[in-house]
Amino acid sequence: MTLEVGVLGYRFMGKAHANAMARLPMFFPDAPDVERAVLIGRDEEALTDAAERLGFDAIATDWTDVVADADVFYNLGPNHVHAEPSIAALEAGTPVFCEKPLAPTLEDARKMADAAREADVPAGCAFNYRFVPAIRYAKGLLEAGELGEIRHVRGRYLQDWLVDPAEPWSWRLDEELAGSGVLGDLGAHTVDLLRFLVGDDDLAGDIERVSGHLQTFVDERPVDEDDGETRPVTVDDAYSAQLAFANGAMGTLEASRFATGHKNDHTIEIHGSEGSLRFSLERLNELEVLRRDENRGYETILVTDADDPYVDHWWPPGHVLGWEHTFVHENYEFLSAIDSGSEFEPSFEDGLEAQRILAAIEDGDERGEWVTLD
Amino acid sequence: MTLEVGVLGYRFMGKAHANAMARLPMFFPDAPDVERAVLIGRDEEALTDAAERLGFDAIATDWTDVVADADVFYNLGPNHVHAEPSIAALEAGTPVFCEKPLAPTLEDARKMADAAREADVPAGCAFNYRFVPAIRYAKGLLEAGELGEIRHVRGRYLQDWLVDPAEPWSWRLDEELAGSGVLGDLGAHTVDLLRFLVGDDDLAGDIERVSGHLQTFVDERPVDEDDGETRPVTVDDAYSAQLAFANGAMGTLEASRFATGHKNDHTIEIHGSEGSLRFSLERLNELEVLRRDENRGYETILVTDADDPYVDHWWPPGHVLGWEHTFVHENYEFLSAIDSGSEFEPSFEDGLEAQRILAAIEDGDERGEWVTLD
Amino acid sequence: MTLEVGVLGYRFMGKAHANAMARLPMFFPDAPDVERAVLIGRDEEALTDAAERLGFDAIATDWTDVVADADVFYNLGPNHVHAEPSIAALEAGTPVFCEKPLAPTLEDARKMADAAREADVPAGCAFNYRFVPAIRYAKGLLEAGELGEIRHVRGRYLQDWLVDPAEPWSWRLDEELAGSGVLGDLGAHTVDLLRFLVGDDDLAGDIERVSGHLQTFVDERPVDEDDGETRPVTVDDAYSAQLAFANGAMGTLEASRFATGHKNDHTIEIHGSEGSLRFSLERLNELEVLRRDENRGYETILVTDADDPYVDHWWPPGHVLGWEHTFVHENYEFLSAIDSGSEFEPSFEDGLEAQRILAAIEDGDERGEWVTLD
Amino acid sequence: MTLEVGVLGYRFMGKAHANAMARLPMFFPDAPDVERAVLIGRDEEALTDAAERLGFDAIATDWTDVVADADVFYNLGPNHVHAEPSIAALEAGTPVFCEKPLAPTLEDARKMADAAREADVPAGCAFNYRFVPAIRYAKGLLEAGELGEIRHVRGRYLQDWLVDPAEPWSWRLDEELAGSGVLGDLGAHTVDLLRFLVGDDDLAGDIERVSGHLQTFVDERPVDEDDGETRPVTVDDAYSAQLAFANGAMGTLEASRFATGHKNDHTIEIHGSEGSLRFSLERLNELEVLRRDENRGYETILVTDADDPYVDHWWPPGHVLGWEHTFVHENYEFLSAIDSGSEFEPSFEDGLEAQRILAAIEDGDERGEWVTLD
Repeated sequence: MTLEVGVLGYRFMGKAHANAMARLPMFFPDAPDVERAVLIGRDEEALTDAAERLGFDAIATDWTDVVADADVFYNLGPNHVHAEPSIAALEAGTPVFCEKPLAPTLEDARKMADAAREADVPAGCAFNYRFVPAIRYAKGLLEAGELGEIRHVRGRYLQDWLVDPAEPWSWRLDEELAGSGVLGDLGAHTVDLLRFLVGDDDLAGDIERVSGHLQTFVDERPVDEDDGETRPVTVDDAYSAQLAFANGAMGTLEASRFATGHKNDHTIEIHGSEGSLRFSLERLNELEVLRRDENRGYETILVTDADDPYVDHWWPPGHVLGWEHTFVHENYEFLSAIDSGSEFEPSFEDGLEAQRILAAIEDGDERGEWVTLD
Repeated sequence: MTLEVGVLGYRFMGKAHANAMARLPMFFPDAPDVERAVLIGRDEEALTDAAERLGFDAIATDWTDVVADADVFYNLGPNHVHAEPSIAALEAGTPVFCEKPLAPTLEDARKMADAAREADVPAGCAFNYRFVPAIRYAKGLLEAGELGEIRHVRGRYLQDWLVDPAEPWSWRLDEELAGSGVLGDLGAHTVDLLRFLVGDDDLAGDIERVSGHLQTFVDERPVDEDDGETRPVTVDDAYSAQLAFANGAMGTLEASRFATGHKNDHTIEIHGSEGSLRFSLERLNELEVLRRDENRGYETILVTDADDPYVDHWWPPGHVLGWEHTFVHENYEFLSAIDSGSEFEPSFEDGLEAQRILAAIEDGDERGEWVTLD
Repeated sequence: MTLEVGVLGYRFMGKAHANAMARLPMFFPDAPDVERAVLIGRDEEALTDAAERLGFDAIATDWTDVVADADVFYNLGPNHVHAEPSIAALEAGTPVFCEKPLAPTLEDARKMADAAREADVPAGCAFNYRFVPAIRYAKGLLEAGELGEIRHVRGRYLQDWLVDPAEPWSWRLDEELAGSGVLGDLGAHTVDLLRFLVGDDDLAGDIERVSGHLQTFVDERPVDEDDGETRPVTVDDAYSAQLAFANGAMGTLEASRFATGHKNDHTIEIHGSEGSLRFSLERLNELEVLRRDENRGYETILVTDADDPYVDHWWPPGHVLGWEHTFVHENYEFLSAIDSGSEFEPSFEDGLEAQRILAAIEDGDERGEWVTLD
Repeated sequence: MTLEVGVLGYRFMGKAHANAMARLPMFFPDAPDVERAVLIGRDEEALTDAAERLGFDAIATDWTDVVADADVFYNLGPNHVHAEPSIAALEAGTPVFCEKPLAPTLEDARKMADAAREADVPAGCAFNYRFVPAIRYAKGLLEAGELGEIRHVRGRYLQDWLVDPAEPWSWRLDEELAGSGVLGDLGAHTVDLLRFLVGDDDLAGDIERVSGHLQTFVDERPVDEDDGETRPVTVDDAYSAQLAFANGAMGTLEASRFATGHKNDHTIEIHGSEGSLRFSLERLNELEVLRRDENRGYETILVTDADDPYVDHWWPPGHVLGWEHTFVHENYEFLSAIDSGSEFEPSFEDGLEAQRILAAIEDGDERGEWVTLD
């Protein structure tokens, strides 16, 4: 059986997923066959061009039919078009893979998760960093109890592309179009990774309370550089949060587009009663691990051995992977789940849970107080 | 003129300051002459032994006379004996050097700062990390505007000596005796360093609002290992905080005695509109600096060149200094200030300011909300 | 025009190049169209399987016709089959891309370079590390004179897969089959990179004299683990060398399969009169650079900006690439050179030059003296 | 008993050892009492000044009487005054502590070692890096067999103070006065450390053969900056060497005063059959260790725990030491050996052994061939 995939969105994420699908046959020969069937967008010319480059058979400017006819629907469009087509697809019994954050509002996210719950097909939320080999390896250590009970988690996602006030306005800086700023764009990744890694009850459990802080450093930006016209920035440039977990563990989160010198620096640090670990996306082949009984300092593990997660599909030890490989792994898992009728995680439910936490952070910032999650 | 110094406290800090004073003549020949005149404590036998080892002329078990008769009084005792002797000394016109945190309560700290304000002699609070050459160098960069306006600060002070629940109870874990846990012990250092580094109005300005989180992971600990007796832990094992500065800059703080694998890891990170920097106490000879116009990544500067702060007093470039050198530098500055009649910073006023922020963090934790500093 | 490519070799290198060709259309749309036409090998069953997985149209167990009929011939077989088919292809006017080292003996390498010189088509030697973006960036700095005149170079290629004496014998450990040990396998890469980076006359110039040291630590290894049979190891497990360059610069080289804990650690360090740089293959997205006039320490540059070499074809800043991307870049350059009729480097001439240096290192080891290159 | 120490030399090394002696009572109370009795030099005014600053009771411009009368003689003068006074002292039965390298010529070194052999008192060669806690810790691991049999060693000592050709001439660049360049100044340290760490027969054993390379990059330098006068540089600016050990282990060595950006970067790397380690003097509190059975990557150990070598004399875990502490440790050991009548290492014999290896490296460079040590 060949899965015919319809994909909405042909920019950054469109390219990342198209590439991932294209690479499966050579590296994951047991993955189901996939046909990049239809690429969906609004600008017919750009779409035609992208479809050719990304290897799609056809294009469509209306998603309505595609979501029903395709074997799988990928929703890689901007946040505000996540809900409607995804729900329509699920109602038509089509599995959906949707980019994060799940939706611009908590209400939309709830509707999507409801639709997913009622549908009998996988509905995945594309938190790709769960599929970094080093993160999977970390997950294995944590599940095996090698770090003990969790006491501290720390997550930072630092970028700097807005540090210059002359950087022009874009739709990403408009609340209507983008839903939120760094909180949804970057914070969603951090929250999901922490839920994935330490969310088990015998590690740290659920996030129960949060304190949030959002900030916009530059309130308006030039539309283009020639005239003096500016537009308001209506989303957050940076956020921070404190977390209280069910077991008493503490967390701090941060993300920024003003962290001068940092390009895509997503860092996770965890301290447990038996050990600690550190991960940084810009060195994604590495994991720093410290086990109290065995180590005196952090051990810098290059997670490229043949028995490391996913690695045997690629190259010999020490031949490092890149950012894009995370998409190959998540596509492999998602498409295999469809093929075998099994469950896929992260699901829309996971997407909703992340969103609830982000919403509480935003709420806490507005109210100036800690917010308890239900 | 030789300054006769009376020192209360002969353990860890007593040794650190006695060593610092002993080293001045060889390395800081322009420092005033100092005589380690009297060492003050309660246990006469231990005191006699310490006085001999640390090079003191005499001992005293009552501080009353010493604080009046000495030329300088060092208060290196536990927090709950900071206020009374320090105030008595100041009232007698004796300069005082007091270890941090200034006092176990905000009220005591206020009284001490009041006494200092009324006295016409230096009253220093011994935040020694202001005297790390790399921190002074960082201060120079910040003051010169090389990092621009500050957007983000981050401070962590991580230790792990309580991670084992079998670690025995000590007076440091009792609120009556210790005043507070990590917040006062470690957090005071972090707050002072950040005030020192970015507190100027054209950098980040004052800390205006805070949100706090305190946690005690292990509620009681064995008194000794043989019988089953335990005592309650009544201070915080860890804290975190979010900060809002006058200029809109954001901060996150943390400290813990449960950060498995970290011994004395005090890390400061700052992002400004023109650059970023990072410092870690366990690599205190280094400073990582990134200037947006000149660098694409952090530059790891070994702050041991002849024209780096304090370095010309010591060894050639690349011959690294240790933790204890910070005490030599601060003693040099403090004693020179007495000698020359000039001001010394960090003062009791700085100690009080740090304490106000720590108290607000504690308050915010109790109230579950952001607290505005007056 | 579509280039029909015939490829000899379907294991590690076969997969690396097939993947590279497969990825060109999506990421390098200006590359010539390529058809993976024929895959050549001896074991028909394994070959059929590989051809399907790697996307080849056909298979052949005899290279004779393929090297003449194909538009391009890739020789990715073991060293001892490099010379004959490559020369046949060149004599038939077919461009050749041959894996390194060029040949098992200096004599064979000379014949291949002779054939290339007489043919009017590109003959490339696949030193893929020239195509790491960070290495290209380093090359740019060096060419612009930013490191000044070169004084020191240092190259190490460390692996550890032979450290266990129980590791079984393989054909790579037999001189007849493999040509040489680490010297040809790993040393060839290091020598080529150094020639590429500092070989210009105003940097360090040619390598003029070498002193070599080869060592085999474990002389025989088990054939399989059950009986006691062993076979002799007839190649070097490790080598080191000292280099003297035309301008007086000094070099040290090393490679080993006994560097416990190192998987694929290829490190280059260069000190010039104006600056220094460091590169490590296991962190291939990074380059450490120090410029005497601008830096006090090394700056860790993440070479993933849009204007860094090749990067604009891939992902946004901070989205790191992997080892395999070097093959995409070299295939792009090689195939584009064929298409446009331009020259390609590294050529067979470069392969021969590397081999001359390696042969001199081996010679120096045998003679116990420095060897002057002609 | 108080040891009266006579010290020849009052500059860099004079300060380092005077400081070390001054610190013993507070930190090593079981060390013998030491009196800095006489400081010896030629320039009476500078000497008087230094004696006061460094805490000496008296000065002398002639060493003849001092070496006989003192309880201990420290020879910290330039190389060419090492032999005569040291031998005179030993002949008078006075223990000698001599700075490295032992002598400017192998012949002188032999005479000194002969004198030491005949005397019945300790004769120490002040290779202070043997007394870095991290190096002692490494020694412990190696002796316990935790790294197995040694395969590779690597030593680099990089400085950059001569990189600018306008840097003025000094006596250190004259063969008559300095004996040698980097080879004696820096290489002596590296050779001694490697002998200390892996010289045992069950590790790597003796260094049996060497190949050397010496280079002077700038042949003459200005005497002062105003007129055009220059003087020739008659020593090596840099050296490299290859080593062959008794057990077949391989080594590479390097030192330079032209390694742009490196101030005092002495790095040791060792690979054994069971593990590897790395040490760098600019991060002297750290040791990177990898044990094949326990680690997948290097573990960065902060060697500041209470049970680490010498550390219990100083500060709590994580409170780092500096370069100068190595002198305190070596003075403690040397003076304790005198006091207790026990042996001290590194001895003049060790100094001679290092010198024999350095001489062979120089010889190998001149002859263009490998040199076998007797």
